[in-house]
Amino acid sequence: MERAIGVIDSGVGGLTVVHELMRQLPKEKLIYLGDTARCPYGPRSKAEVQKFTWEMVEFLLEKDIKMLVVACNTATAFTLKDLQDRLPIPVIGVIQPGARAAIKFTKNNHVGVIGTEGTIRSGAYTNALKHIKSQIHVNALACPLFVPMIEQGILYGDQADKIVEDTLEPMKVKNHMDTLILGCTHYPLIKNTIQAVIGNQVTVISSSEETARETSTILEVHQLVNKSDQIPVHQFFTTGDMDMFIKISESIFQHPTSHMVTIKKAAIG
Amino acid sequence: MERAIGVIDSGVGGLTVVHELMRQLPKEKLIYLGDTARCPYGPRSKAEVQKFTWEMVEFLLEKDIKMLVVACNTATAFTLKDLQDRLPIPVIGVIQPGARAAIKFTKNNHVGVIGTEGTIRSGAYTNALKHIKSQIHVNALACPLFVPMIEQGILYGDQADKIVEDTLEPMKVKNHMDTLILGCTHYPLIKNTIQAVIGNQVTVISSSEETARETSTILEVHQLVNKSDQIPVHQFFTTGDMDMFIKISESIFQHPTSHMVTIKKAAIG
Repeated sequence: MERAIGVIDSGVGGLTVVHELMRQLPKEKLIYLGDTARCPYGPRSKAEVQKFTWEMVEFLLEKDIKMLVVACNTATAFTLKDLQDRLPIPVIGVIQPGARAAIKFTKNNHVGVIGTEGTIRSGAYTNALKHIKSQIHVNALACPLFVPMIEQGILYGDQADKIVEDTLEPMKVKNHMDTLILGCTHYPLIKNTIQAVIGNQVTVISSSEETARETSTILEVHQLVNKSDQIPVHQFFTTGDMDMFIKISESIFQHPTSHMVTIKKAAIG
Repeated sequence: MERAIGVIDSGVGGLTVVHELMRQLPKEKLIYLGDTARCPYGPRSKAEVQKFTWEMVEFLLEKDIKMLVVACNTATAFTLKDLQDRLPIPVIGVIQPGARAAIKFTKNNHVGVIGTEGTIRSGAYTNALKHIKSQIHVNALACPLFVPMIEQGILYGDQADKIVEDTLEPMKVKNHMDTLILGCTHYPLIKNTIQAVIGNQVTVISSSEETARETSTILEVHQLVNKSDQIPVHQFFTTGDMDMFIKISESIFQHPTSHMVTIKKAAIG
């Protein structure tokens, strides 16, 4: 029995990471747990986020996962170091992969970051970037309307264009960034709109794509790559409403997911 | 005393990986060993490449390196698995990072690979790509003139253009690849020419850039990131001619290296 990669998120945003894991690592089995009942984590205290995150981790450890992906910016900011210290399996978050990709792409060391108010306020991306390369100039901008807009299913059209344009306006005028990190797992769903507004001269980095890429790296170095050629059947768990979870996951995967995923209710906490 | 990242190569090509490591990980100290006296490894037997590689590894282990980068395609193809099994430190090669980057970038699953005759004949890139994602179609092409041309210092101009154009001709006509891996550590030095010939619609991937990026990932997951803010002084060792090594390294770094590097002769084997 091949062991799975465990993925946790406060809700559904982490499914963009799952989507990329399926695309880049089609042989790997995934077990996803979205704590939709207690979403969002952003406004919660550090202690509460840590408690909830550990509850999710314990749920997945019982399923014998071989690696953990923390697909939530808030949980990454507050718990990654602790998880890496204490778990016997490799752990990766969503912040550092985006930061490393930006350092690779930027030619002028001017990097933009957009995310929720909580993520931007935490300074987690700025810290991650400067921790690796202190020469990087960071221009961070909170985009508080993006997640609510996306969760309403508004991904295209005049309204989406207008919201993205107005929100990113301060970023366009005041800097010379050549690279922009989408520092929220929801944002890949509006990547095309963001790219159009910010211009083709800027490389837009999806932290979901980059996290999946680095998961692949870590599997190899730890010799955990799945050797079986069987098509994996994934398991998704939600702590909240099942119908809503299925609806949103099908909009992210852009087709019915029942043939490749079993979705169940999880009781944790 | 902060521990260094060790980098080995059969000669000077691995210095493009070093260049990227310095750019993406400016706080990390590097120790490079180029076996220029016995270069190239390409035409040698597997047993001989393994023996030479282990001799280089032992030289660096005595310097207490914290991680090993095998910046040589031939050595990666023949020794990576063995090194990962037997060394107590993380080990990464140059083949898998390029393969993973290609899997991330390609939208149509058509990937091209160019490299030396030895690398292409070994099928190492095709294996690495299909091992992760069997749906990938690979179009591999040996470019036997590129390394000799680059080692002659011919990086630009009519002659370089003509050689690159003629060599890549078969790749342009017969496939729909959207991603091309530079499967040789010398090739980043002619990346612009290759990009111009192959067209802007194709994403050209430098295995040197990608290997440095993944080195950064592995340092974090193994909690090996350098915490000191001192500017590192690197050490380069060559088994061959010192003057030639200094000349080539300065052409790769595009400026004198004496302020940041000490270069010494190494006796191994």
